[in-house]
Amino acid sequence: MVAFTTGNKGADSTTLPVSYADVEAAASTLKGQAHRTPIMTSTTVNERTNSQVFFKCENFQRTGSFKFRGAYNALAQLSEAQKQRGVLTHSSGNHAQAIALAGKLLGISTTIVMPEDAPAVKQAATRGYGAEVILYNPLETTREELAQSIAGDRNLTVVPPYDHPHVVAGQGTAAKELIEEVGMLDLLLVCCGGGGLVSGSAIAASVLSPSCRVIGVEPKQADDAARSFYSQTLQTIHNPQTIADGARTPSLGNITFPLVLHYVHDMVTVSEDAIRSTMFFLWERLKIVVEPTGALAAAALLEGVVSAPNARIGVIVSGGNVDLQAIGKL
Amino acid sequence: MVAFTTGNKGADSTTLPVSYADVEAAASTLKGQAHRTPIMTSTTVNERTNSQVFFKCENFQRTGSFKFRGAYNALAQLSEAQKQRGVLTHSSGNHAQAIALAGKLLGISTTIVMPEDAPAVKQAATRGYGAEVILYNPLETTREELAQSIAGDRNLTVVPPYDHPHVVAGQGTAAKELIEEVGMLDLLLVCCGGGGLVSGSAIAASVLSPSCRVIGVEPKQADDAARSFYSQTLQTIHNPQTIADGARTPSLGNITFPLVLHYVHDMVTVSEDAIRSTMFFLWERLKIVVEPTGALAAAALLEGVVSAPNARIGVIVSGGNVDLQAIGKL
Repeated sequence: MVAFTTGNKGADSTTLPVSYADVEAAASTLKGQAHRTPIMTSTTVNERTNSQVFFKCENFQRTGSFKFRGAYNALAQLSEAQKQRGVLTHSSGNHAQAIALAGKLLGISTTIVMPEDAPAVKQAATRGYGAEVILYNPLETTREELAQSIAGDRNLTVVPPYDHPHVVAGQGTAAKELIEEVGMLDLLLVCCGGGGLVSGSAIAASVLSPSCRVIGVEPKQADDAARSFYSQTLQTIHNPQTIADGARTPSLGNITFPLVLHYVHDMVTVSEDAIRSTMFFLWERLKIVVEPTGALAAAALLEGVVSAPNARIGVIVSGGNVDLQAIGKL
Repeated sequence: MVAFTTGNKGADSTTLPVSYADVEAAASTLKGQAHRTPIMTSTTVNERTNSQVFFKCENFQRTGSFKFRGAYNALAQLSEAQKQRGVLTHSSGNHAQAIALAGKLLGISTTIVMPEDAPAVKQAATRGYGAEVILYNPLETTREELAQSIAGDRNLTVVPPYDHPHVVAGQGTAAKELIEEVGMLDLLLVCCGGGGLVSGSAIAASVLSPSCRVIGVEPKQADDAARSFYSQTLQTIHNPQTIADGARTPSLGNITFPLVLHYVHDMVTVSEDAIRSTMFFLWERLKIVVEPTGALAAAALLEGVVSAPNARIGVIVSGGNVDLQAIGKL
């Protein structure tokens, strides 16, 4: 076993917008709605890393990613009036499908603003869950402006993909399940886009496995969160070129940034090659379909960016929504 | 619920070479050695088929396919003298890796005869488990002759891929686990190559879910078992052209054929297109990597070859060993 310093920094946690009690409450809300996803192990991975590695497989979550946890938790806590008016979000990715299904299950109408060049398969999947999809031309308008304008006109509640306390609390339930099932960890690796999953995971770990070091993993090509973490000043990135589409977010959020600073112990980055080869390694060895973003955390370990011999390591596999046609080209 | 006639035919089961007691014994032998593989469900599949479908995921079995069950069970029952001398098999596929790992776990040396054009990745995987791999030129010699000759010279016990009572009994443990976990089934769909898995599964179902109809599924391009079943005379096929490489066997065996006739209720075939589209459907929707042979049973259901509305249906996903390079071309 290796010993780690906990390394928590910054503000008194009682002033932060999300606490472990919120994660616990989210777990109750999600009970019977979100899948308790399986945890996989691999002798090959254990031998190769000289550790004991536990993969929490959120690619098997409803709608194919962890996003369902935060979306459902946020929608369930709306007031009755908000529920009746409906919700809106802007996303071309996993959050869109998550909001659409959560809305369907809770009887809340959902509107999703998507760029008109979003893959037809994602538009169809989102409509398939019953959402209204509004397309826009990304050259003519920004999605934030359009989303605010439609939400205003229709009196809809905007549920953003990560910068919301109930979303963060929901995302933290995956790490909670992982640690409750396998026991204390020395290290927990989590991908980082807008920071909802990594901050929620770190909040859960801080209570359930206090000596566990939590590391966020970003693509090198989209390293805004790592730069924000090290400079302690919010950094942004414009239209980053990475195959990990879930990590193409412009920056951490107003809510997630202080949480990351307080609870996350380190941030690392991985190359596009590392993401690609890890993704296919997980397909071939674990027999699970993982999207590029879903391979980020594992890539940091398998490509040696992070090394922790003789440790108990949790790795969150965030999602498995891939367009096989597009993947074939990789 | 639909009612099915049981449809068992042919000889008194007491004269057959494998009984349910053998499957039970195999389950004891495999305990702690084979994985108890997960069972997956899919709302999309249930809605599309108007049934309740349970996928038994042997792609998550050790060595990536159900073959480990039969291989380990057969090797564990060798005499001490046989164990000391070692075993040999001829296979370029999943049985080779299964024998290699079972031998490693049981301390039995293993020799695998493979055509020299077998994919390098499969040769490497088999050697990785500690087996000696002997390559031959398939244009100059047949593997059966070479295998017999080497086995004779070295005094090795040949463990064939399907036509062996202990192999069949081991394969039956997957269906046993499935029915014990989800309860009685109306229908069980199982791929068929040499008939080890389908006959073992049908033996298990005959006791654990007596009214369950068991259907074997073959590629149309390799329909020897279906023709054997309907003509009640062993039919063979030479070098069938199917992407389902696990079903490229020339015929059912002397042991599996009477078991199939007695215990299996029907045999159906599916097209190459059905195999391909079902395989990718399982990748995209269930997020599991399935090899072409592993998609056969699901293809019969999802492509409507078999229909059983309002039924409880078991589908065995036999394996997930794919060469992603080769799959990319599909």
